[in-house]
Amino acid sequence: MSFIKKFEKPLGMRDTLPKIYEKVETIRSIGREFLITRGYVFIKTPTVEYFDTVGKASAITDTQLFKLVDSQGNTLVLRPDMTTPIARVAASKLLKEMIPLRLAYFASVFRAQETEGGRPAEFEQMGIELIGDNSVFADAEVIITALELLQRFALTQFKVTIGHAGILNCILQDYTESIEQQQILRSLLVQRNFVGFEEAVESFDLPKAKSDALLQFIEEAVTVNDIRDIEKYVRKNDALTYMQQLATLLEAANLAEYIAFDFTLSSHMSYYTGMLFEIFATGSGFPLGNGGRYDGLLDVFGSKVGATGFSIRVDRLLETLDTEESQSHDTTVVLFEEEQFEAALAIVQELRAVGKKSVLQLRNSLVDEQAFLAHFTEIIVVGQEEVIDE
Amino acid sequence: MSFIKKFEKPLGMRDTLPKIYEKVETIRSIGREFLITRGYVFIKTPTVEYFDTVGKASAITDTQLFKLVDSQGNTLVLRPDMTTPIARVAASKLLKEMIPLRLAYFASVFRAQETEGGRPAEFEQMGIELIGDNSVFADAEVIITALELLQRFALTQFKVTIGHAGILNCILQDYTESIEQQQILRSLLVQRNFVGFEEAVESFDLPKAKSDALLQFIEEAVTVNDIRDIEKYVRKNDALTYMQQLATLLEAANLAEYIAFDFTLSSHMSYYTGMLFEIFATGSGFPLGNGGRYDGLLDVFGSKVGATGFSIRVDRLLETLDTEESQSHDTTVVLFEEEQFEAALAIVQELRAVGKKSVLQLRNSLVDEQAFLAHFTEIIVVGQEEVIDE
Repeated sequence: MSFIKKFEKPLGMRDTLPKIYEKVETIRSIGREFLITRGYVFIKTPTVEYFDTVGKASAITDTQLFKLVDSQGNTLVLRPDMTTPIARVAASKLLKEMIPLRLAYFASVFRAQETEGGRPAEFEQMGIELIGDNSVFADAEVIITALELLQRFALTQFKVTIGHAGILNCILQDYTESIEQQQILRSLLVQRNFVGFEEAVESFDLPKAKSDALLQFIEEAVTVNDIRDIEKYVRKNDALTYMQQLATLLEAANLAEYIAFDFTLSSHMSYYTGMLFEIFATGSGFPLGNGGRYDGLLDVFGSKVGATGFSIRVDRLLETLDTEESQSHDTTVVLFEEEQFEAALAIVQELRAVGKKSVLQLRNSLVDEQAFLAHFTEIIVVGQEEVIDE
Repeated sequence: MSFIKKFEKPLGMRDTLPKIYEKVETIRSIGREFLITRGYVFIKTPTVEYFDTVGKASAITDTQLFKLVDSQGNTLVLRPDMTTPIARVAASKLLKEMIPLRLAYFASVFRAQETEGGRPAEFEQMGIELIGDNSVFADAEVIITALELLQRFALTQFKVTIGHAGILNCILQDYTESIEQQQILRSLLVQRNFVGFEEAVESFDLPKAKSDALLQFIEEAVTVNDIRDIEKYVRKNDALTYMQQLATLLEAANLAEYIAFDFTLSSHMSYYTGMLFEIFATGSGFPLGNGGRYDGLLDVFGSKVGATGFSIRVDRLLETLDTEESQSHDTTVVLFEEEQFEAALAIVQELRAVGKKSVLQLRNSLVDEQAFLAHFTEIIVVGQEEVIDE
């Protein structure tokens, strides 16, 4: 156990100070209004869930889970994503009322960090889940909603990379000789480690036809201009037809310029079964958000329906937006002496009645008057004729 | 370990479904705007803190803490209140910029439950902390802000009970003969168990003068019309003068009708040092909120400044308000067949451009069309001339 200083926070935990808080609030409010207009309804789930239900289904590796034990001896987890708890709520309640369901959230998720490497252990996500519609139109709706949401934030410099978990799995199965090999290659792709992928393929001693196919695939599938180029690798041609259809729908929505296909795309969220995507702001190495189709997850909670969705990382969106200071210092302070309380109260009440931010402050309580007053645009001293403007 | 069913949530954990979510959102938004107008700035602290810092300082009993252990072997806690983390942030950063500080929050706090007794293990609080102003005006500001906040929600049937931790401690010290006796009496007062208090006093075998004084105090101090009535029990007359002053300030703010003094008031939050209060809605047995002065807490984090604040329980406020349904079903659905996607998209885009909530739905994906359509006020079928109004 290390020595903890009195101010310290656990690894990866952050405070959100007023300036950033207001920026997040702006994102929250714009995103909320945008998603509500599209017929999504917001829900909230508990921070703490059972490991055996949400924890196991969540597809986050065990070392990244914050685990605790309750007084009954059950293992609990801090929710590592929102997709799994929402699947639980949908299956247990909401799908009985309406199918398909359109749900939205704005919530913190938790991923334990083992070193102070700058990655947050708690971060906010904004996202949607469209549950109970297995059509390509539902997948198109999810991608269109994600992109239009970014456009709503006046973001124009971004790209969406779309792949297909089913197609990639099929290729990895066909051209390797063990499940272990598939897992190694898949985890290298999750890390976008193509050099490692090629080295691994060579180390496997596969028949030349297979290793050649894998090496060629990894070259060709990263940036796909014509989906038919991938045909030669795939048994599963209905999935390619599906992707072709998806491309057409995104074109119809005038979003072709933001779209790229990458059939090597693989996610650490292992519940994705169909199309999956990542959104990058130009120049950023970390995805702003991601999403995809997860047709098996609801089944874990007893509902045999497919689902698709996305989530956006609010912290990364904030960095990308580089918004101007929204916390304007347009606050008035009304300074009073002990015996002037009633008069001072009357002044702030008038100011607040017209929506003016105003603070009532006993002058004698100020240790450093100048430093305090520097935070206000207007200073009213009760009993003095004039207003002092800073 | 008990057997966990697939839908289950940990003891006391709740989902917030869309209708309630929107009501909470309304409270959040009104409260936020109200507190900002009064010059309070919002902050957020991490859900997880070190036990040795915030956990120990928080004054929540150990059995109510959600504890976990990080990969370094440190004990962590889910924040059991917001006052302690805010004291940490203020002492480590914000007090360097401004004194006094006016901070606000809207956040979940966590209290582990050992039985499913209907008490939530995670609940939202809205509150403020006014840090670095030791005057009675700061305490008055906190109470006035709490009461005006409730008035802002159109609540009129409520009462604030104000006590003083210092005065009560002084009386308990003077009329008992051990720290243990003081602790027993204090915890009975926290539970409002006056019968238990009287029985305990009688069981202590105190000198008659002391036990008589305690028994008379417990009768007389619950509803105090004139603060001077308490004078005879108290060594600390400056604290009574302080309370008298506070009463005068609250009268000046036209809030006398909501105020009652109760010098038996004691809180499970042991960090309160001065005046403390509880807010009850008429007819409710549980406080809507509470607050008080905590002059020692900042010192734990290395800042020798006093502070005062309150928090309101959002769940109880919601129950009290009994608001009408805010989630109106004024949503349009645009139904389309596969080949009509572009035309359908154009229709929803027009609707959304004028701020109309609208859903785009492939008709073929509907399992139970009638049940789905019942959720919309307007139904547009692409390709049909007429709009079907539900």
